[in-house]
Amino acid sequence: MDDLKVVVIGGGSSYTPELIEGFINRYDELKITELHLVDIESGKDKLKTIYNLSKRMIEKANVGIKLFQTLDRQEALKDADFVLTQIRVGGLDARVLDERIPLSHGIIGQETNGAGGMFKALRTIPVVLDIVEDIKKYAKKDAWLINFTNPAGMVTEAVNRYGDFDRAVGLCNVPVNMKNQFAEIFKVEPDTIELDIVGVNHHFFVTDIFLEGKSSIDELLDMYVSGELQNTPTMKNIESLQWSKSLIKSLEAIPNPYLNYYFMTKEQLQSERDQYEENNVRAEEVKKIEKELFEEYADPDLDVKPKALEERGGAYYSDAACSLVDSIVNNRRDIQYVNTLNKGTVTDFPYESVIEGAAIITNDGPKPLNYGKIPYKLNGTLQTIKTFERMVCEAAVTGDKDLAIAALTLNPLVDSDTVANSVFKEMFEAHKDYLPQFDQE
Amino acid sequence: MDDLKVVVIGGGSSYTPELIEGFINRYDELKITELHLVDIESGKDKLKTIYNLSKRMIEKANVGIKLFQTLDRQEALKDADFVLTQIRVGGLDARVLDERIPLSHGIIGQETNGAGGMFKALRTIPVVLDIVEDIKKYAKKDAWLINFTNPAGMVTEAVNRYGDFDRAVGLCNVPVNMKNQFAEIFKVEPDTIELDIVGVNHHFFVTDIFLEGKSSIDELLDMYVSGELQNTPTMKNIESLQWSKSLIKSLEAIPNPYLNYYFMTKEQLQSERDQYEENNVRAEEVKKIEKELFEEYADPDLDVKPKALEERGGAYYSDAACSLVDSIVNNRRDIQYVNTLNKGTVTDFPYESVIEGAAIITNDGPKPLNYGKIPYKLNGTLQTIKTFERMVCEAAVTGDKDLAIAALTLNPLVDSDTVANSVFKEMFEAHKDYLPQFDQE
Amino acid sequence: MDDLKVVVIGGGSSYTPELIEGFINRYDELKITELHLVDIESGKDKLKTIYNLSKRMIEKANVGIKLFQTLDRQEALKDADFVLTQIRVGGLDARVLDERIPLSHGIIGQETNGAGGMFKALRTIPVVLDIVEDIKKYAKKDAWLINFTNPAGMVTEAVNRYGDFDRAVGLCNVPVNMKNQFAEIFKVEPDTIELDIVGVNHHFFVTDIFLEGKSSIDELLDMYVSGELQNTPTMKNIESLQWSKSLIKSLEAIPNPYLNYYFMTKEQLQSERDQYEENNVRAEEVKKIEKELFEEYADPDLDVKPKALEERGGAYYSDAACSLVDSIVNNRRDIQYVNTLNKGTVTDFPYESVIEGAAIITNDGPKPLNYGKIPYKLNGTLQTIKTFERMVCEAAVTGDKDLAIAALTLNPLVDSDTVANSVFKEMFEAHKDYLPQFDQE
Amino acid sequence: MDDLKVVVIGGGSSYTPELIEGFINRYDELKITELHLVDIESGKDKLKTIYNLSKRMIEKANVGIKLFQTLDRQEALKDADFVLTQIRVGGLDARVLDERIPLSHGIIGQETNGAGGMFKALRTIPVVLDIVEDIKKYAKKDAWLINFTNPAGMVTEAVNRYGDFDRAVGLCNVPVNMKNQFAEIFKVEPDTIELDIVGVNHHFFVTDIFLEGKSSIDELLDMYVSGELQNTPTMKNIESLQWSKSLIKSLEAIPNPYLNYYFMTKEQLQSERDQYEENNVRAEEVKKIEKELFEEYADPDLDVKPKALEERGGAYYSDAACSLVDSIVNNRRDIQYVNTLNKGTVTDFPYESVIEGAAIITNDGPKPLNYGKIPYKLNGTLQTIKTFERMVCEAAVTGDKDLAIAALTLNPLVDSDTVANSVFKEMFEAHKDYLPQFDQE
Repeated sequence: MDDLKVVVIGGGSSYTPELIEGFINRYDELKITELHLVDIESGKDKLKTIYNLSKRMIEKANVGIKLFQTLDRQEALKDADFVLTQIRVGGLDARVLDERIPLSHGIIGQETNGAGGMFKALRTIPVVLDIVEDIKKYAKKDAWLINFTNPAGMVTEAVNRYGDFDRAVGLCNVPVNMKNQFAEIFKVEPDTIELDIVGVNHHFFVTDIFLEGKSSIDELLDMYVSGELQNTPTMKNIESLQWSKSLIKSLEAIPNPYLNYYFMTKEQLQSERDQYEENNVRAEEVKKIEKELFEEYADPDLDVKPKALEERGGAYYSDAACSLVDSIVNNRRDIQYVNTLNKGTVTDFPYESVIEGAAIITNDGPKPLNYGKIPYKLNGTLQTIKTFERMVCEAAVTGDKDLAIAALTLNPLVDSDTVANSVFKEMFEAHKDYLPQFDQE
Repeated sequence: MDDLKVVVIGGGSSYTPELIEGFINRYDELKITELHLVDIESGKDKLKTIYNLSKRMIEKANVGIKLFQTLDRQEALKDADFVLTQIRVGGLDARVLDERIPLSHGIIGQETNGAGGMFKALRTIPVVLDIVEDIKKYAKKDAWLINFTNPAGMVTEAVNRYGDFDRAVGLCNVPVNMKNQFAEIFKVEPDTIELDIVGVNHHFFVTDIFLEGKSSIDELLDMYVSGELQNTPTMKNIESLQWSKSLIKSLEAIPNPYLNYYFMTKEQLQSERDQYEENNVRAEEVKKIEKELFEEYADPDLDVKPKALEERGGAYYSDAACSLVDSIVNNRRDIQYVNTLNKGTVTDFPYESVIEGAAIITNDGPKPLNYGKIPYKLNGTLQTIKTFERMVCEAAVTGDKDLAIAALTLNPLVDSDTVANSVFKEMFEAHKDYLPQFDQE
Repeated sequence: MDDLKVVVIGGGSSYTPELIEGFINRYDELKITELHLVDIESGKDKLKTIYNLSKRMIEKANVGIKLFQTLDRQEALKDADFVLTQIRVGGLDARVLDERIPLSHGIIGQETNGAGGMFKALRTIPVVLDIVEDIKKYAKKDAWLINFTNPAGMVTEAVNRYGDFDRAVGLCNVPVNMKNQFAEIFKVEPDTIELDIVGVNHHFFVTDIFLEGKSSIDELLDMYVSGELQNTPTMKNIESLQWSKSLIKSLEAIPNPYLNYYFMTKEQLQSERDQYEENNVRAEEVKKIEKELFEEYADPDLDVKPKALEERGGAYYSDAACSLVDSIVNNRRDIQYVNTLNKGTVTDFPYESVIEGAAIITNDGPKPLNYGKIPYKLNGTLQTIKTFERMVCEAAVTGDKDLAIAALTLNPLVDSDTVANSVFKEMFEAHKDYLPQFDQE
Repeated sequence: MDDLKVVVIGGGSSYTPELIEGFINRYDELKITELHLVDIESGKDKLKTIYNLSKRMIEKANVGIKLFQTLDRQEALKDADFVLTQIRVGGLDARVLDERIPLSHGIIGQETNGAGGMFKALRTIPVVLDIVEDIKKYAKKDAWLINFTNPAGMVTEAVNRYGDFDRAVGLCNVPVNMKNQFAEIFKVEPDTIELDIVGVNHHFFVTDIFLEGKSSIDELLDMYVSGELQNTPTMKNIESLQWSKSLIKSLEAIPNPYLNYYFMTKEQLQSERDQYEENNVRAEEVKKIEKELFEEYADPDLDVKPKALEERGGAYYSDAACSLVDSIVNNRRDIQYVNTLNKGTVTDFPYESVIEGAAIITNDGPKPLNYGKIPYKLNGTLQTIKTFERMVCEAAVTGDKDLAIAALTLNPLVDSDTVANSVFKEMFEAHKDYLPQFDQE
């Protein structure tokens, strides 16, 4: 490859500096020639701030990446090799509603699970499908879409099922975070660890962990069951609750931290209700953090990624994206954890669905390592979320309100069909400007 | 067949008169020669009452069935052709605990779903497996076990997986009840209707209905969605709540009434909590009904099945059992709805698991009609319950407390791993005398 | 149903009198009001002979079936309820070539297996797909297509995969013939027997046999292995060869007679080569038989089906078709053996493929009894033929010569890729007038 | 790992020098401390010759491998880390019979396909299962068995299904040979190429080829179809025949050279018959080559692997084994082509069967890359051979002659059930001393 053009859609995101740092660090082996930051009109100011900071970072690092900012997505996509999507349709204000409305009805509000995640998907999927159409029209024939917009699993599922495009990879930072935390537990370097994971984005289990290739899940489970290890991995943005030893011992697997929402629903709901009362749900907190970050970014003396960014829930997302681009370009065949087509990798999931799992990354994209059958105890909860994802994707594309309501009713975080109907109605009213695919009545 | 010996284990059940009536009505084509009512020491009095009533019924009907009562199960099983099990380990007092303890922890208590159903399974499965051992030792080589003890699905699953016995059929009255209610809706005779159902005992959906063989699901859904039909079928013992039109329209299926527990959890829980406060949970109500029934049964002038029996939630169970025996003996090849081995009938369920579905009944037992894939929207909830069933069956056989707790945590009616642990602990203490397979500490 | 219109395409076939007899015999319960015999220009004379004989038969039987003959297919199809197809594209002369050309290259020539069957499929499938288009345009919305044109399996597969039509059933007389022969062996009435069969048209195994519902396969296998039974069922048109006891004992199944071609290839080939030398291959013999039959049919005094017809290989085909129509119209729910969509009935076959198997016949069409996994020993040969069928269907629709050649190479009756190429070339030249979908070069 | 003990069973094989060379070349990264060559009494002389040559090679290379020779297998296995099996039960004389007897009945004789391969499996499987028992008793708990005894697929299948041992990997040189030949075609280094292969040992297809990760199968197929490329890869020991362009174009895959036996049966048989007449079947030729090789080996001045060894059909087998040992020990995670448990890798093959496919090699053994569904055109032939393999494995373990005969009848290289019976009988007589598991009558 002589030139390498990367386009970042949602370039004005507060996470972009991590991306810039990632590309700078890998420049020796991944010579990006052009990097285009694209955003929409309402994000123009943030885009400018990010562009300026990125420019200072690139200059300081003295690497040959040509940087651009634009609001013209189609122009930017011309001959692109990689398109990275990190968008937030409706912005943080929409996220506040995603969290607060469900809580006002007594159910969990959260941007990737339940009612909140569903509405984020309904807003995002049509926009990403539009981007895919542009990629097919303007980008290089073999361009890749790397999506790390949440809910990353559903977005990737929708692109695969409805976008007539098979070069999309979804990324999430949870597997990498868990890997890093396991490395601390075992006191080894993260890159000596590999995981077997089974499930979908934000809803998977670690069923084995390999230290220098050696299966060590039994040792890990024993540490937890014996009490030597107090907590399984957590995320910055999720309250840490301790699973019972009975659960871990029986499942023979480590749930990812987001499963708190499903297996500690009562406590999680109580905690979110408290935040709700204090007008401090996660989205409201993030708004404050973002404000501070952008103030920091605007400092003309800043020419590196600020430390504060690492403290956020989304840390490592962008670095994971850089790694993925690098491994595709350089055919590295290393193992990464991505959202990609199942094709029988997990035999119990639909063949045409997207899973989150271990894959070697090649120039031809991710090649999942075979997984086999879902351990039977994990099957119910995993299928439930896959069903939910598929219903939401279909509703997002068809604009079928009944289907969206039914998806909510079947979601384990929603405790009644009646509640599902009321929540849907109120949220639809709140978000309808971003839901043009639905009948606006 | 020259002689036909039928053994009823739990012969002292208040439902037995329906069974007697069923055999009397079918006597022309199903000539039972010996009918043995078996019970345990603590049920001796009830057994005697039932035996006497049954004797009067048989004499009045003037059929040649020889009737016996006994506490010696093994003796009764000698050369049996059919063994019917309708037992209640721990009696109604245990059922009261199954319902009240979970409610005291804020979750649904119910004898076939959630914590209550799990403990009923833990108490019942080892007893039924003992009966199976006796059948293998004493009954005829090709004897059939017809189980209608709840939870009928899990009991049949356990016998198939752990009992090394493939001639067990599980029965439930819900499909028959739904069929009868559909017949009323369409104003036709029940025997002109057939259903496509998919799922497991107490957790299935009707995905098609055939009137004289003609697919009429669209007509039925339209009636519901248009408002012409106010309610889908209900059960005597389950509060009737109306599903939203969005749910029915999207699922393109009619949920069985027990799905109220899962899709109307909030309202169902509230209603049960009210009964709890009034000391009138279902088990407490049933105790009163049973007392009245037995008083009626004791009347030496009574020589037919009392009408009151038809008002109970378990009505038609016994008649369904008589139909099943008849169709096996006479190789009728008619369609009945039974719990039987999946073997690929529903391709998404485990091959070796038990399903509830439509089968033709032959002398070689039930032959399920092929179903195919689970409609994707129904897959999550169905797999969740199948996972729960399998975990409970394994725990019942192995006495693994951790596994039982994990099963509860994964059950959608239990809102937290912490709650699952507390509820298990208290229920285990309450029922431990009936749970010898578990460590008694 | 007030009126019932049946259209027979290929009405001039010598088998039609059996069909007429079948409808006459069932008239009490299956009141066909109009019966249209359709044929093409070149079959006008035969059609007239058949029409006249049929008219005499109907008059003699004094039933109210109105009979019509026509060359206008579309007119005949108007408002039809059932369309029966029994056509022979290219006539018996084409069949002679189907048999003789392969034999001249040293491989088996036969109208349903190998090169001969493939070319019959290539000629027939486009014509049947045309008929399907006409049915969709002119017939009643819920009309059924009953196809008994060979190769019946491939034709039904093609209609299901490429015809956008799901109301086609394929019929063959082999299962019925086997059932009749088993009845003789066990000295019982055929209608007290049911079979488990697994496979596709002309390539299936009987894996169980039920006498009054009782599994009797072990008894049947023992009779064969012990030597008490000398031969398994045969067909009129296939030389009877004795399978080795080792084969039957190990397969635990009875192969249908056509499997002679695959497991007795050497002997079968030798025998066909002899017929080839004597200018007396099956097609040549059939030509003589047909000539005689039509002479007999022309006799104005004949007003019943001639006995001679029962001696032919295709006997019982038409009667099976009458049974099928009857069971659909009257929602009989009896078991018949038909070619229908798999949909997971046999879990190892493709979900969207057609199988030959046991189904209950309802007003909504055939509902296969679940079969489950293919016994592993039978899997290879069955998958090989299913692969062949799918390749041939695709080639018939797309006109892809390379694919047709590859299908031949993979067929076990063809002993070399080189031979496959030569045979294809010569046969294509011979049949090209009937293969307009292929490039004519 | 401090010490690394490797045991070679069949150490007296003429291929051992390649193995020694492989270990010498990798010594820097793979420090084998002890290498034990084990053989049986009748191979004592050859073992001695090999031992002496190996000793000279190791001394010349000046590496720290301690070399041993012994006839005491159990002693040698004590605390072994790796056990390599390269045995030939019955020696080359048995192979001569494997080839000549079938040819005398008019069918292909060959040591891995058809009757010859079956008898090799029947002789070998029980011996390898004995070795497995010894490994479980004497070797380290996490010892690996690397089998490259033919038929490698069946031997590995048998160890997995019947040996209660899941640390066996089967190896073959065909995929490596094909990779090397593709490298020549594309004029690139072999290690820049990866393949997608689907099937079983000696019966697989290459369905994609990646040059530096880039899918290039279309380019390869075009080269063949356009005539630019005359031949697909071949093997030293298999006559090279040219597939038709139609076949390659339609299959969209490159058959491995052994598929000549199946798709060029006629020509292959003719060529073998010629060799038969000249008393020069492959086994007879190999006997001569071996004699010459051992004369060369005995030369006390020889201290490197002789060039002549590379000209043999089995070249690269041993080097592949060294690579595999190296990648396991060093957790290399590189892609190799091995025989390993399917576990859903290829969704259409049995879950518990062994496949030959691409896997990354880790310290926990091979982890196959997911493959997905078998392309439908390849399914029939692949399932046929898998069925054959499973029947042969079962017959080898149970000593069921009928099953072995049925396996032969179903094998596409055998043209009749009658021939299968005769060939089996004669071969059984010839080999009976090595078939103690069968009734000797």
